[in-house]
Amino acid sequence: MGRWEPNARGRLEKAALELYATRGFDATTVAEIAARAGLTERTFFRHFADKREVLFGGSGTLEEHLVKGTVSALAEGLGPVEAITAALCQIAGETFTGERRALARDRQAVIASHPDLRERELIKMASMASALAGALREHGVSDPGAALAAEAGVAIFKVAFGRWITGPGSRPLADIIRETAGVLNSVTGG
Amino acid sequence: MGRWEPNARGRLEKAALELYATRGFDATTVAEIAARAGLTERTFFRHFADKREVLFGGSGTLEEHLVKGTVSALAEGLGPVEAITAALCQIAGETFTGERRALARDRQAVIASHPDLRERELIKMASMASALAGALREHGVSDPGAALAAEAGVAIFKVAFGRWITGPGSRPLADIIRETAGVLNSVTGG
Repeated sequence: MGRWEPNARGRLEKAALELYATRGFDATTVAEIAARAGLTERTFFRHFADKREVLFGGSGTLEEHLVKGTVSALAEGLGPVEAITAALCQIAGETFTGERRALARDRQAVIASHPDLRERELIKMASMASALAGALREHGVSDPGAALAAEAGVAIFKVAFGRWITGPGSRPLADIIRETAGVLNSVTGG
Repeated sequence: MGRWEPNARGRLEKAALELYATRGFDATTVAEIAARAGLTERTFFRHFADKREVLFGGSGTLEEHLVKGTVSALAEGLGPVEAITAALCQIAGETFTGERRALARDRQAVIASHPDLRERELIKMASMASALAGALREHGVSDPGAALAAEAGVAIFKVAFGRWITGPGSRPLADIIRETAGVLNSVTGG
């Protein structure tokens, strides 16, 4: 592949998820992931600290985009949960495109099968809620509204994402997020 | 104390929380907890599997009561989040009384200071949400409404509980839960 290694990160991610899904997370080695991607272990470690980071490496960026998008939407006059929903829809359109769906499903299956990874996923969601609540507070939403809106936003994301990866696959994630936010309104009986 | 050891569990819990708060969770031994409670280590292990279970031993019972209460409230015709809120208020009135507040605050401080315990708390909350969602589905609430209502209910509990233990202390938890549920309605903008 030469030293440019085009899309090395994406190839490593795909190879890792395929191996985690077929042989299990614990049984897969970094050497095998690198070999399957046609790259070296050294290249793997240039992109990921360890096997686990392949699954969670994007969560910092996701959180950052979500906070930024929410703050922009608040500035446009949306309510707190509406603002988070708008930010989620934008991220969904840009990041969680149709081609990502199979990978996202493999990722979720690996996480579901492994208690440590499920814990890590819970921590990721809690961190997202905490970052969102902080951003809402800084932009004029008082508590407990800020904390509740952040939890509601993360719940919308979690439930919509699950529907996206298990559903028939023809619907964009952004549509499912909007619909899920509407269902939350109806169950809270507001 | 004799072999009846009146309220051994409660005494051990109080002693443990006081020691965790003053010396730290890691530095506290079961022998010290038992001694402070005026009981033996053997008695400790009759009530708790380990030091951690003092903090989480009640979560199974809480989850069970919450599910039962929610199912009863659904049967009375309440909406899904209203039903969970009603169940939470009942549990609050029975279990989280004013005298429990200082203990609950000590418990939360210990958990906040320890990453492993924070993870365990997240798992407890996720388990509560999952149990609630299952109960709602079994009683005619379809998804994604069931999953969302369960997440919303847990968010109400988490936020209200935090307000109860950090607030001025004169308000019963049930009042705070009801108010918090109202705030969730207003932020979702239903």
